[in-house]
Amino acid sequence: MTGQIESRLAELGITLPTPSTPAANYIPFVTAGDLVFVSGQISQDETGRISGKLGAELDTAAGAAAARTCAIQLLTQVRAACGGNLDRLVKVVKLTGFVNSTPDFTEQPQVINGCSDFLVEVLGDAGRHARSAVSAGSLPMGVAVEIEGIFQIA
Amino acid sequence: MTGQIESRLAELGITLPTPSTPAANYIPFVTAGDLVFVSGQISQDETGRISGKLGAELDTAAGAAAARTCAIQLLTQVRAACGGNLDRLVKVVKLTGFVNSTPDFTEQPQVINGCSDFLVEVLGDAGRHARSAVSAGSLPMGVAVEIEGIFQIA
Amino acid sequence: MTGQIESRLAELGITLPTPSTPAANYIPFVTAGDLVFVSGQISQDETGRISGKLGAELDTAAGAAAARTCAIQLLTQVRAACGGNLDRLVKVVKLTGFVNSTPDFTEQPQVINGCSDFLVEVLGDAGRHARSAVSAGSLPMGVAVEIEGIFQIA
Repeated sequence: MTGQIESRLAELGITLPTPSTPAANYIPFVTAGDLVFVSGQISQDETGRISGKLGAELDTAAGAAAARTCAIQLLTQVRAACGGNLDRLVKVVKLTGFVNSTPDFTEQPQVINGCSDFLVEVLGDAGRHARSAVSAGSLPMGVAVEIEGIFQIA
Repeated sequence: MTGQIESRLAELGITLPTPSTPAANYIPFVTAGDLVFVSGQISQDETGRISGKLGAELDTAAGAAAARTCAIQLLTQVRAACGGNLDRLVKVVKLTGFVNSTPDFTEQPQVINGCSDFLVEVLGDAGRHARSAVSAGSLPMGVAVEIEGIFQIA
Repeated sequence: MTGQIESRLAELGITLPTPSTPAANYIPFVTAGDLVFVSGQISQDETGRISGKLGAELDTAAGAAAARTCAIQLLTQVRAACGGNLDRLVKVVKLTGFVNSTPDFTEQPQVINGCSDFLVEVLGDAGRHARSAVSAGSLPMGVAVEIEGIFQIA
């Protein structure tokens, strides 16, 4: 817990969880050169999965809070990809955010901002990334948000 | 306006707009090595956003025209990533095109061709790219099309 | 047919089809450095396209079988990218799987496992990949599944 980014997380009162390991033939991340491709992280925290559709059961603020849990998990996986040392993270390159919503929901960017804002809060300019924010027709286990990411590490 | 690609754009009567800057913690593009990852560009032109669902308010030709506006904006962002010199663009690597449609719409490829065809028209073989074309459940602000891209630059 | 992976495919009784070439301005794959970006492959086999929505006409097992056909086509494109020698494939980096489903379908991971499991069956650990599995609002020509991939080659 002596790294710069770990200190920033501690300041924010955030403890990264143990990275989840999918029970399947896919894995949480793959490194190719200096790029780390992280699997889609679904909205969940220590209390369980965050489910529901935006535009129906969930409002945009709840969606943004759900997206923030995806950011925490993305960072957890990147830390694992860095062998535990988050200071090896050069920058967040690209996020794709999928929102579980009704067909008439139009605030996907505000939802995914919950993830984007967290990454910049923790990482500063290195957290600024390219991004797409779209609705999925539906998501695994009915979760509210799923976000995948590409990261550059040293 | 002396570059080869700029000349081609001029021939086609196309002026690239000023690149839009998102009012958020994400940015229009991130470069990693020689790859440029461009954020999802929504369908819009100088007259405003192009909204509506394919299979409902918009037909496939209107969708393709909307996709073309995404291509123009992608190229605008790539030009910025190239420091203003589009001749540094080596090739278009990959596009992901999201179409705002009803659940029974099946002409996503024809819609996204509006983007693909434009890129090849301007860039020739360097514009040929890998691609996915799918429907999103819905899109930001109700726009018809959102397209993100990966580009290789020199 | 003397390569290691080709032998494994033969053992499994799988013949890779002739890679399909899209009739459009996009192409099946683009290589940038040692990464191959393969276009979204739709569910189809020698008998034709596999269409239908998960949660309506198709159950999860049928969806997984459809996803397996996407895997076969992805591998076919990667073989072409390797100049015919699949032993040049270093690893599968990332898949994005789009499932054509009703809005209440929640077993996207189980569907895309049909692709993931096949790749690990053929490639072993090199087949383990990062992944996102989401529903699309709808898919081209009504197909059940579309999967794109990023691969690292030597």
